[in-house]
Amino acid sequence: MKYRVDINSDLGESFGAYTIGNDAQLMRHITSANIACGFHASDPTVMAQTIKLAKKHRVAVGAHPGYPDLAGFGRREMKLTSEEIENSVVYQTGALAGFAKTEGLALQHVKPHGALYNKAAEDEQTAKAIVNAVKSLDPNLIIFAPPNSVLAKTAADRKMRVAAEFFADRAYNPDQSLVSRAKPNAIFHDSKKILERTVKAVTEGVVETIDNKTIKLGKIHSICIHGDTPSAVKLVETLRKGLAKAKIEIKAVGTFI
Amino acid sequence: MKYRVDINSDLGESFGAYTIGNDAQLMRHITSANIACGFHASDPTVMAQTIKLAKKHRVAVGAHPGYPDLAGFGRREMKLTSEEIENSVVYQTGALAGFAKTEGLALQHVKPHGALYNKAAEDEQTAKAIVNAVKSLDPNLIIFAPPNSVLAKTAADRKMRVAAEFFADRAYNPDQSLVSRAKPNAIFHDSKKILERTVKAVTEGVVETIDNKTIKLGKIHSICIHGDTPSAVKLVETLRKGLAKAKIEIKAVGTFI
Amino acid sequence: MKYRVDINSDLGESFGAYTIGNDAQLMRHITSANIACGFHASDPTVMAQTIKLAKKHRVAVGAHPGYPDLAGFGRREMKLTSEEIENSVVYQTGALAGFAKTEGLALQHVKPHGALYNKAAEDEQTAKAIVNAVKSLDPNLIIFAPPNSVLAKTAADRKMRVAAEFFADRAYNPDQSLVSRAKPNAIFHDSKKILERTVKAVTEGVVETIDNKTIKLGKIHSICIHGDTPSAVKLVETLRKGLAKAKIEIKAVGTFI
Amino acid sequence: MKYRVDINSDLGESFGAYTIGNDAQLMRHITSANIACGFHASDPTVMAQTIKLAKKHRVAVGAHPGYPDLAGFGRREMKLTSEEIENSVVYQTGALAGFAKTEGLALQHVKPHGALYNKAAEDEQTAKAIVNAVKSLDPNLIIFAPPNSVLAKTAADRKMRVAAEFFADRAYNPDQSLVSRAKPNAIFHDSKKILERTVKAVTEGVVETIDNKTIKLGKIHSICIHGDTPSAVKLVETLRKGLAKAKIEIKAVGTFI
Repeated sequence: MKYRVDINSDLGESFGAYTIGNDAQLMRHITSANIACGFHASDPTVMAQTIKLAKKHRVAVGAHPGYPDLAGFGRREMKLTSEEIENSVVYQTGALAGFAKTEGLALQHVKPHGALYNKAAEDEQTAKAIVNAVKSLDPNLIIFAPPNSVLAKTAADRKMRVAAEFFADRAYNPDQSLVSRAKPNAIFHDSKKILERTVKAVTEGVVETIDNKTIKLGKIHSICIHGDTPSAVKLVETLRKGLAKAKIEIKAVGTFI
Repeated sequence: MKYRVDINSDLGESFGAYTIGNDAQLMRHITSANIACGFHASDPTVMAQTIKLAKKHRVAVGAHPGYPDLAGFGRREMKLTSEEIENSVVYQTGALAGFAKTEGLALQHVKPHGALYNKAAEDEQTAKAIVNAVKSLDPNLIIFAPPNSVLAKTAADRKMRVAAEFFADRAYNPDQSLVSRAKPNAIFHDSKKILERTVKAVTEGVVETIDNKTIKLGKIHSICIHGDTPSAVKLVETLRKGLAKAKIEIKAVGTFI
Repeated sequence: MKYRVDINSDLGESFGAYTIGNDAQLMRHITSANIACGFHASDPTVMAQTIKLAKKHRVAVGAHPGYPDLAGFGRREMKLTSEEIENSVVYQTGALAGFAKTEGLALQHVKPHGALYNKAAEDEQTAKAIVNAVKSLDPNLIIFAPPNSVLAKTAADRKMRVAAEFFADRAYNPDQSLVSRAKPNAIFHDSKKILERTVKAVTEGVVETIDNKTIKLGKIHSICIHGDTPSAVKLVETLRKGLAKAKIEIKAVGTFI
Repeated sequence: MKYRVDINSDLGESFGAYTIGNDAQLMRHITSANIACGFHASDPTVMAQTIKLAKKHRVAVGAHPGYPDLAGFGRREMKLTSEEIENSVVYQTGALAGFAKTEGLALQHVKPHGALYNKAAEDEQTAKAIVNAVKSLDPNLIIFAPPNSVLAKTAADRKMRVAAEFFADRAYNPDQSLVSRAKPNAIFHDSKKILERTVKAVTEGVVETIDNKTIKLGKIHSICIHGDTPSAVKLVETLRKGLAKAKIEIKAVGTFI
């Protein structure tokens, strides 16, 4: 096969008595799991269970560190210092690595969550703090980032491997950023359309923007599926079949990057 | 030299704007640091700084996991399930191991904190959960415990190395438990007396109880110094000199256990 | 009508991105809402919304304070001092009273949550701390408690009004305590049976225990419906109809106690 | 006497085992206490104790609400929605009002803390959210704000009473903002100089800026003393004597605004 791509999803975001997501279903279909680490979501028992579930389905595991804000689910920007961001990422990634170790697994990647991901995509200070944390823990860890983002460039400059993500069901602005969920047409619901865009992104490295122009994203390594939508499981099934038909091999990014 | 002993202290218990303890001073005199992991005290930046300080002074580092209770400083018992205790210890120890790794260090030991330590000393379910966590992370980690306690026995049964602790400035009950701080004469303040008791504990494995009987503790591997008392630094200096004079070598427990 | 009874339910237990319960549905059918206050569940915005929802449906509002343990949903006992319990109840009740005030409402009652409720039912120190807190805030507040419990007696001794609760769908032990959910037959699912037991409790003050004996509960003021079960809405509809047919008037407890 | 002024300080910022500030000393000299409410600092027991201490010294009490960020002491800006800010202020102020009520006191004022105060001073959305919260709780509450700030104007527009604050030991920029603590000469240490500036601010409504120009602040109602500096107690003593000598009466702002 000529093309290969990874499918990732944010999982393990339940917390105590609170359940969120379709982890048990989604885990059957993805190749990389971004696992919450207790700062924006999750708790030690949810983390242990999510690592076990990933192991069962042979899904590669990565840390999904966020701002220390359970009440805001890590979606509210916080003005942390570089030192605080770096240490928060070490803490969360170290904690998840502990659970991986108890199951004989090693982490494949780190993907920042929510507001921290968005900030790192465009702010060099935040990106550097995250890359410093990840590299100092393990220089073999892959960093997930939007293609051509500040985070992607910062990680590459530090000789870290970067997995460029494509958001399968989200509309893109001309500057490669995602159209805000608050705006109309920000999210695609037609799975045929989503598949078509995904195949194009993976095979040609391009996407059609919200104003109908085609822009270059470059090489795409991983497709992000949001697990909190009710239709996520159905969508990922459609994607898997469509990608296979298009001769695109679906594998964990760590095996081919 | 015939006798060897470790000196340990609980450090890294500051939190955000809140400072506690005399870490910079104490770190010069101890051989093992029990470092708080963010559940009963500390935060990611304090953890990073404490690991760096320990490295500078070549002090062996260990995790000091507690109940998830910052407001209670881990001193209030919480009825967690075995699974919750085990996963809490994996989480906290994993997080600290991450900071150690960024400095090229490995953890030497795990010592539960406060109410979790007291519970594990006498409750088998709690002790098992802690030992399971530590062993599944790294079977070479040493577990600190009161001599002859349920925690010590449980760890030994699971073939883990156990460092038996002596509390230098605390009075003992006939059943080897510590006299409650709320009671009179629970704490020794005379450093000459404390030294004398310590030497006896290390060389003979005995201690005089609060009712003036001598009881057998058995082999002592480490002396615990409380860092939150103002006189802690002075006491540890006195102890070091006195132990040296008594031909007792002071070394990190991982080097001789 | 000869008999009157209140129907209460625990509501407002969502938290940030996490949703729990069927508040919008249940609020249409109950007369008293026990509203979580941010310690075991909820956050300021959920509290504001829940107060507004109660106002819309003219449901009487009360504070539902719990242990400070979001990760454990207040279901894990914590060894707090009397002073800590008292102050925790003042804090949580005061916070909810603030939201009530912004909507022109006043609190009707306080019902402790989960492990704190269970502890107060049998432990005098805990019961006293709660009653002290509630009385010092407002001696007109009603305290919800199991009939004949330590909490009920302690509140009555302090001249506070007590609403004795009947748990409609739970099996009772011969000592009036509830059969643990972990045991078989602890929960009734047959709504006809539940209604029959409820009518008997309200009109005769008795309940049949799990071993088929009839025990005296005494006067029942309120029926507790658990909102987190999927069938809660259906059950409360059945209960309302059945109680009406049995000539039992359903009113907020503050109107008739 | 012709001039009157209030002296306020941030108190009650200890948390669990962590102690901060000189509350017992400062409370003897100030007229208004801004009491932390558990989000950026404090806990229910510290709040209860601080209210009692204020009552003992007949100091007027106010809420000092902050961002929900204990680890950052409320000094890190967080992107909360208007609704979240409003509800956070209702929650915190309501909780403190509860403790005041148990001691027979009523709140005099609300002063936002740290990053929330700074944000409200210049951001209308934040200022509106805070004013909405305070007004909906009690339209008689006084709002503390920098003179001429967005918060001061927003509160005045809503017909709320505003206490304009002067920061006695801080250097001012030409635009009336405070010189960042990170810059040289940001803080005055000479108590004679501080007194002189304070008298001028109170009697003439002006201050000399860091570049030696005199700017108009307008009427000053309260002088803010930072309690976390070791010299705070000494400074407030000097200020009190000097203000008395200058015929400026020192009274809680609620008595004369």
